[in-house]
Amino acid sequence: MRVVIAQSNMLVGDIEGNAEQVIATAAAAQAQGAELVLFPELALTGYPPEDLLLRPSLNTRVRDALAAIGAAIEVPVVLGYPAVRNGQRYNVAGLLQPGETRPQEEYFKHCLPNFRVFDEKRYFQPGQHATVFTLNGVRIGLLVCEDLWHPAPMVAACAEGAELILALNASPFSDDKHESRTAHVAARSAENGVPIIYANLVGGQDELVFDGGSFAVDAQGECCLQGPFFESALINVEVRRSEAGALSLQGEQCPVPDLDERLYRALVLSVRDYVNKNGFKGALLGLSGGIDSALTLAVAVDALGPERVEAVMMPFRYTADISKHDAAEQAHTMGVRYRELPIEPMFDAFMGVLADSFQGTQVDTTEENLQARCRGVLLMALSNKLGYVVLTTSNKSEMAVGYSTLYGDMAGGFAVLKDVVKTRVYQLSEYRNQVAGQDVIPRRVITRPPSAELAPGQTDQDSLPDYDILDAILHHYVEQDFSAEATVRAGFESEQVYRIVRLVDRNEYKRRQAAVGPRLTQRAFGKDRRYPITNGWRPGD
Amino acid sequence: MRVVIAQSNMLVGDIEGNAEQVIATAAAAQAQGAELVLFPELALTGYPPEDLLLRPSLNTRVRDALAAIGAAIEVPVVLGYPAVRNGQRYNVAGLLQPGETRPQEEYFKHCLPNFRVFDEKRYFQPGQHATVFTLNGVRIGLLVCEDLWHPAPMVAACAEGAELILALNASPFSDDKHESRTAHVAARSAENGVPIIYANLVGGQDELVFDGGSFAVDAQGECCLQGPFFESALINVEVRRSEAGALSLQGEQCPVPDLDERLYRALVLSVRDYVNKNGFKGALLGLSGGIDSALTLAVAVDALGPERVEAVMMPFRYTADISKHDAAEQAHTMGVRYRELPIEPMFDAFMGVLADSFQGTQVDTTEENLQARCRGVLLMALSNKLGYVVLTTSNKSEMAVGYSTLYGDMAGGFAVLKDVVKTRVYQLSEYRNQVAGQDVIPRRVITRPPSAELAPGQTDQDSLPDYDILDAILHHYVEQDFSAEATVRAGFESEQVYRIVRLVDRNEYKRRQAAVGPRLTQRAFGKDRRYPITNGWRPGD
Repeated sequence: MRVVIAQSNMLVGDIEGNAEQVIATAAAAQAQGAELVLFPELALTGYPPEDLLLRPSLNTRVRDALAAIGAAIEVPVVLGYPAVRNGQRYNVAGLLQPGETRPQEEYFKHCLPNFRVFDEKRYFQPGQHATVFTLNGVRIGLLVCEDLWHPAPMVAACAEGAELILALNASPFSDDKHESRTAHVAARSAENGVPIIYANLVGGQDELVFDGGSFAVDAQGECCLQGPFFESALINVEVRRSEAGALSLQGEQCPVPDLDERLYRALVLSVRDYVNKNGFKGALLGLSGGIDSALTLAVAVDALGPERVEAVMMPFRYTADISKHDAAEQAHTMGVRYRELPIEPMFDAFMGVLADSFQGTQVDTTEENLQARCRGVLLMALSNKLGYVVLTTSNKSEMAVGYSTLYGDMAGGFAVLKDVVKTRVYQLSEYRNQVAGQDVIPRRVITRPPSAELAPGQTDQDSLPDYDILDAILHHYVEQDFSAEATVRAGFESEQVYRIVRLVDRNEYKRRQAAVGPRLTQRAFGKDRRYPITNGWRPGD
Repeated sequence: MRVVIAQSNMLVGDIEGNAEQVIATAAAAQAQGAELVLFPELALTGYPPEDLLLRPSLNTRVRDALAAIGAAIEVPVVLGYPAVRNGQRYNVAGLLQPGETRPQEEYFKHCLPNFRVFDEKRYFQPGQHATVFTLNGVRIGLLVCEDLWHPAPMVAACAEGAELILALNASPFSDDKHESRTAHVAARSAENGVPIIYANLVGGQDELVFDGGSFAVDAQGECCLQGPFFESALINVEVRRSEAGALSLQGEQCPVPDLDERLYRALVLSVRDYVNKNGFKGALLGLSGGIDSALTLAVAVDALGPERVEAVMMPFRYTADISKHDAAEQAHTMGVRYRELPIEPMFDAFMGVLADSFQGTQVDTTEENLQARCRGVLLMALSNKLGYVVLTTSNKSEMAVGYSTLYGDMAGGFAVLKDVVKTRVYQLSEYRNQVAGQDVIPRRVITRPPSAELAPGQTDQDSLPDYDILDAILHHYVEQDFSAEATVRAGFESEQVYRIVRLVDRNEYKRRQAAVGPRLTQRAFGKDRRYPITNGWRPGD
């Protein structure tokens, strides 16, 4: 039997459009010999549909879409969708046969993740029973995503005679997710002596990125097929029965990207899908001559092509000539439209109007924020006029400690580097240049000391520790949830740790108003880390 | 026996500070004769602590705080706190006796709300057992908040002999919450023939407002005590046993505020707590001469006093003279500092720098947004320099359909009217003037046609339906979750409904970057309504 994994990119909420995609994809899979087509978890709604699941007409729309698919397909499909059965809402995997108006077999997801970025207990009731059916002489069991991270659901399916598991997933990317995914699935398979075909979603959805990378493991838990990453794909799985009756799986073995490639491609996919799925004509960004905006520009061009990307340099009196030169050079290399719009006239106008109010006060960060906000307003004016979304360029290190200006450099629709710490920004810039075989990001942008250029001769390290120390402290405090004291015990200077921790805690209000951006690590700012703004928690142990 | 309800206002996360408050409050209650002091749900952490509950040192901090309380009190207290027991985290109500280092009795909340604004299944495991103990000869059962909305937990407590229930709550305000609360509690009481003392939290916490209003019901479900609303209080409950052995409760009967008073006081409390708990010196806002900023100013002054509030009028060429006049008049009446800062110079500077880029394009909302953004930048500059938080003034009707400018009038830390539709803005303005016995909000601000004054002669109704129709459609679609078709069937014009629904759906990206603001209805924008930004859901049925 040939099973085809339909590693698909769905639009959340567009049930009608996703149903059309299922129909077209099933036809394409059939054309390459599919006897069964396997779609991901909640393929009909995309993932996560969030409170769209609470809309009263959801069940009707899903029912109509399933009927439309049944009427159109000529090959059985297994796909995920939400459904209300006996007054309860479930996360369902269903088998739909050609010509039928409703699924013949339905499995209700047992294990509902309600941690980190997941809120499934807000929407679903857990299923209780295994679902196993026979197709082409093979006893097939269905499981959904989180079910594979726990032993019980697969044990239950095998107890009902499953000899092959089809797993439907919407498993979001994080840097080492592929390894934990395959380890869990291999364990399930080896525990039960039953092979598993794992179909994952692909695409960007607000802050989540689905990396695809569907795969299959044999009855011993060995990987016997690896699909491609970060792209839609139809992946053939040959299911063969030996003379002794055992099932084996065979298929292509795509390479697993290394860390840099994964991160970079996740960024590209997230930008492409945010811009296209939200119907923007293109994207624009402020190009400062610094490395954050340089990397953001490279990602944007790889996501959308140079003709849909614009770069704007907005110099001020503190902008070095080399900043202007390097920005212009990169824009030229990448082939994007480049504008230079000075902020001096607006800055001076603001300071003039505020002169009376500011009389007798000292220059402080107010004047720095004002520069950033003049730039933000300029970019938003271009965005409004052109229909291009503004990409913000703050990195995770800055977002963590509040070294970015609300309504200034934080103004925009998508925060590309929101989960990329500064040291990784360097690493990914080097990666991008290596792939190109040339410095698409100018060498000097990488080597010069980082500076926001908001005051004369300013560098980031005037007020922050070196980024390798800052990022390491953030890794402990944010990503690993160490306390301040535990971070100190891990070998950092106490005063520095307490200062950073206080900055992280105090700047939640800024992050709450930040644009969404792609989650790449095990703890991103956003729905992955839900802290109160009003917060009296004291650093310490 | 005299039980004292400690209707308390806690600071989320400040376990040490909250413990000190518990100690001081218990002493004050004892001084007025308390034999038992009852604090709200999660009093030690405040509510909701969100991901602070996941901090590794949480349990240690809670344990230390409980020990400190036990060492200091001279009267038994019942209070709420989170605790890890046998490796699981629970939402606990505990009885702590003077001189003890740890609670003698603990109840683990059974029913964990994980809907609307609640995420308790993200943090807690449900308890399984009733907790009933004897104090001063009375068999007392403990319950926590959501437990009272379902019959089973109280039935279990009564099965173990409870003859009085102490209920610890962190029940957030919404317009008719008091009535649903008392109805549920009365039902529980009458079902079991056992009286209930209901202690609620009070105070603002980001988007939640806790209204207090603690109360008690007798064994027949009749209200026999009503505490005050929107303020901290020590409320005496006399628990008496009749000769026949039945328990009766007695205490004060505070009036229950009507709808306008509730809403207005909820706004005042939320602003006061946001500003004070976050350590701002004061608050400032743009005062436009329109009704939204007029009401916001009144709320701010009632929350903080006139000396901590500043109003800024930022006129432009479309600002009517009466706007300037009315703004100045209100600022004068309310006794707040008033500045007039024109935006003409900055607007002209931006348009000058953008002239080349905009050549050949039409005037559109870009220019209107630019005005709003010049104002936002001015307010933020003053905010930065003064240490005052900016209050934003957009109402719920505008937030719903996107009639507000990101980084413009949406710039600020707290969105006071975020859950107040325009028709309610009028209603609350009239209420405020009635209470004052004078027009603290100038009469003309209430009677003139609403206008953003972003174009010559503009009024809101140039591009929106009348607010009574708009608000009614929003009530159906947002607050009641009607589909577009069901809203049409409820008697609205189809074209208008579809237009409004599309605007609501399309403007999620703006709301996602909005400041938090107090939730007053059963469906506020914020954690109460979690929609994807990237969203292909089609209006219809």
